Amino acid sequence: MNIVDGNLTLDSVSKVGDLWREMKTVVDNAPYERKLKLLRAHPDLCCEKLESLSSSSQVEQTRSGLQSLTDGEKERFVTMNGQYKSKFGFPFILAVRHATKYTVLAALEGRLKNEVDVEFLAALSQVHKIAWMRLLHAIHIENPKGFLTCHVLDTANGVPASNMRLHLHRLHPQEQPEFLAEFQTNDDGRLPNGPALKGQDFIVGTYRWTFFVGDYFAQKGNYTSGLPFLDQVPIQFGLDDPDQHYHVPLLVSPWSYSTYRGS
Amino acid sequence: MNIVDGNLTLDSVSKVGDLWREMKTVVDNAPYERKLKLLRAHPDLCCEKLESLSSSSQVEQTRSGLQSLTDGEKERFVTMNGQYKSKFGFPFILAVRHATKYTVLAALEGRLKNEVDVEFLAALSQVHKIAWMRLLHAIHIENPKGFLTCHVLDTANGVPASNMRLHLHRLHPQEQPEFLAEFQTNDDGRLPNGPALKGQDFIVGTYRWTFFVGDYFAQKGNYTSGLPFLDQVPIQFGLDDPDQHYHVPLLVSPWSYSTYRGS
Amino acid sequence: MNIVDGNLTLDSVSKVGDLWREMKTVVDNAPYERKLKLLRAHPDLCCEKLESLSSSSQVEQTRSGLQSLTDGEKERFVTMNGQYKSKFGFPFILAVRHATKYTVLAALEGRLKNEVDVEFLAALSQVHKIAWMRLLHAIHIENPKGFLTCHVLDTANGVPASNMRLHLHRLHPQEQPEFLAEFQTNDDGRLPNGPALKGQDFIVGTYRWTFFVGDYFAQKGNYTSGLPFLDQVPIQFGLDDPDQHYHVPLLVSPWSYSTYRGS
Amino acid sequence: MNIVDGNLTLDSVSKVGDLWREMKTVVDNAPYERKLKLLRAHPDLCCEKLESLSSSSQVEQTRSGLQSLTDGEKERFVTMNGQYKSKFGFPFILAVRHATKYTVLAALEGRLKNEVDVEFLAALSQVHKIAWMRLLHAIHIENPKGFLTCHVLDTANGVPASNMRLHLHRLHPQEQPEFLAEFQTNDDGRLPNGPALKGQDFIVGTYRWTFFVGDYFAQKGNYTSGLPFLDQVPIQFGLDDPDQHYHVPLLVSPWSYSTYRGS
Repeated sequence: MNIVDGNLTLDSVSKVGDLWREMKTVVDNAPYERKLKLLRAHPDLCCEKLESLSSSSQVEQTRSGLQSLTDGEKERFVTMNGQYKSKFGFPFILAVRHATKYTVLAALEGRLKNEVDVEFLAALSQVHKIAWMRLLHAIHIENPKGFLTCHVLDTANGVPASNMRLHLHRLHPQEQPEFLAEFQTNDDGRLPNGPALKGQDFIVGTYRWTFFVGDYFAQKGNYTSGLPFLDQVPIQFGLDDPDQHYHVPLLVSPWSYSTYRGS
Repeated sequence: MNIVDGNLTLDSVSKVGDLWREMKTVVDNAPYERKLKLLRAHPDLCCEKLESLSSSSQVEQTRSGLQSLTDGEKERFVTMNGQYKSKFGFPFILAVRHATKYTVLAALEGRLKNEVDVEFLAALSQVHKIAWMRLLHAIHIENPKGFLTCHVLDTANGVPASNMRLHLHRLHPQEQPEFLAEFQTNDDGRLPNGPALKGQDFIVGTYRWTFFVGDYFAQKGNYTSGLPFLDQVPIQFGLDDPDQHYHVPLLVSPWSYSTYRGS
Repeated sequence: MNIVDGNLTLDSVSKVGDLWREMKTVVDNAPYERKLKLLRAHPDLCCEKLESLSSSSQVEQTRSGLQSLTDGEKERFVTMNGQYKSKFGFPFILAVRHATKYTVLAALEGRLKNEVDVEFLAALSQVHKIAWMRLLHAIHIENPKGFLTCHVLDTANGVPASNMRLHLHRLHPQEQPEFLAEFQTNDDGRLPNGPALKGQDFIVGTYRWTFFVGDYFAQKGNYTSGLPFLDQVPIQFGLDDPDQHYHVPLLVSPWSYSTYRGS
Repeated sequence: MNIVDGNLTLDSVSKVGDLWREMKTVVDNAPYERKLKLLRAHPDLCCEKLESLSSSSQVEQTRSGLQSLTDGEKERFVTMNGQYKSKFGFPFILAVRHATKYTVLAALEGRLKNEVDVEFLAALSQVHKIAWMRLLHAIHIENPKGFLTCHVLDTANGVPASNMRLHLHRLHPQEQPEFLAEFQTNDDGRLPNGPALKGQDFIVGTYRWTFFVGDYFAQKGNYTSGLPFLDQVPIQFGLDDPDQHYHVPLLVSPWSYSTYRGS
């Protein structure tokens, strides 16, 4: 890792995850009182004035949409926020960089019900999450080691789904999805030329596969209904760690499918 | 069933599926020679002049996008179409109302490899499919009996996913998805007020659920990663029979999900 | 709830789960020091002398098979047990009533790696689990409210799997499985006469469905291979709460299946 | 391929599947009348005298348990068999080597409902299936190319399930399962030393994985219930082609799992 002009750069061997895990260990091994102090040092999530916050906090809180709460939502938020603080003795902490106002309200409502011990750990895990996302933002990763792969299995016929067309898009908030590539699965149901994303293209963010399942089963002759139950199958997923392998497969019949984070 | 001014109307007891099954039985019970004659009576799927077709065929073929093939695709289509006809002795038949040019090319390529006996049945099943879709188009269904339901199970915690927000959209070709409704699952993980669609709203077409899975698991405290692997989960499906129950559930953990046509 | 001659009896309205949740709340709301005292009051899990334990603890620990560890396992257990105690300041607690020696060793190894805060909660959750199992053992439940249901979906054809034969067995340690019943699914893929188990027959324990999937798909004509990939499909599951509904369905094609705790 | 003393031996390059596909092509390309003649040449499946059959047919039919039908089953079988013959003009053909009487009755009942064209193809596919199984029986395969692999994914935590114990058994009719091996998954959730079966050990037949899922999640700390819903998870599957790769994975959370024929 190098620091040049105040900017962090990870060399080709280090992983941002390793750095984060080291930071996390320091916190986890600290005594209870120091952890509590850390939690109490966090600013309130708020729906009004942001001036007093650090610039990172300002950016994050603006994104969360908390500034656009309706009156009813604002009242609910303020009430629960107050209850939270008096129950647990520290402010409600949430990694809001990718959260909407709905996520914030749902998380606050859910966590307000926690026992004190459980919530203490939940709050700490949010602190770690915020650290993770600020690290990702602050560090320029020269050569991310992560990559994205796919595999399509035809569970109606017990074979790899070969010759299935699929698209990959990158999603941006408030914008049209960005088309990245079209693929055609090979005989083993995999992408023909290795990972769909790797190296500099493997950017943390939200992506979408679109599988042309209807066309595939039309070719196999598996359909008899008019409008197929499954035609274009979208799978939307987040890539969160630039150094990990994400395998996002599809298991599909004309009437069912599943997906999962594989390896 | 009533015929008024040349328009068919199904009364509240009949089902369009029953009518179709009766028509299908007549064909299925016909001798081989009559079936072959039926197949041979179909027009060629074509990428040029449509004037000679019946108006139903014209509409259907226009939709398929066969008129917008690239030169390479056109050549491939014409070649395979010719091979098909000499191998099987009847024209390539495909229910193209909901098909794209990709579906047509994929189906033609796949079916060209069939044995003669198998393809004879495949072609007949397309005839039935065309009949089905024309029936749906021709008949005014007073009171469709079909309905759409949902159920969300949290497979990480082994419980119904309660309080999960979801949206329902209707999809239209070349247009923005039409927002229909927002729901919040009840304690049993189901829609709180019965079916999402029923009666006059249960229109044959393509729909999309969007499940706010990220918010749900934020409330449960199941997340530790920054950007969740699963946040908004879309499920896109076709409703093909106005008189059937479509149950389209979601089984979901923070790292995997599946769906299926249920009952 | 009645106590007669020292035996607890739950009347038809109470649920053992409600009683347990009340007991749990008392513990959860206690201050940190009292919880720690509770953890420290637990006996060591041990592989030698049991005389000093309460009779409940003796029975539980005998069942776990810790008395039949090999020399190598015993050494590993004793070492890890010592490390655990010095790291966390309380003995390793595990609800061993249904555990084998493998479970004990696996759990000890895994939990030894926990942070102190996390393990404190994990140990408390084992205390609650032990309480739960002792309650189940101590209380005579007049009329359990739980029941067991099933549903079979054919994901290759998108329909309920009707007319599928299935068996239900109860499993007993070291004994042959006890055959309970044979069922044939109805048109909706469900059991024809309501729950497979309910009332007095709904006994906490381990059960097994056996689905005759090969016969079902032979009837549907979906098979072409010689020996089917899936023929008899066993699903083995534990019923833990006498007052809950356990829905244990099967989603199956000739080449894949899934199951889950449903509702 | 060599024929020595009337025994067939496949050399290290040939695959029994290739030989079978060639035989199948000869039949598939024959004219309709010759196919019909082939179907009509098959003996009746029968529940009485077997003397008149070829020795292969005798062995196969004895195994099917048709000789042990109850009176009611025998009557049902004879009636349906007669209806079948008069509807289709050829005897009911079923590959019975691995079938029970339940499979036979289910298949007969299901196929009796087929249209004539469809059943003609179904009967031919049974002829191919019988050929396949007789080939497997007749040919000594020097060096099978098939192998069996496994992979376990933890869908609750989004990671490979490492350090999960599993057993492999071979199942024999009317006998205790034969224990073959115990494995411990590696960091990637796979078997540590390559395929579980390969070469001479890869024998066509029925097998069972047993995954110790309860122990795994006890180590991860995912359980809170007393008796786990999933503890030992059995997966039973048939290996039918000695030259193919069978990948039989497990995707599992504490409350759900799925498996499939992978690649």
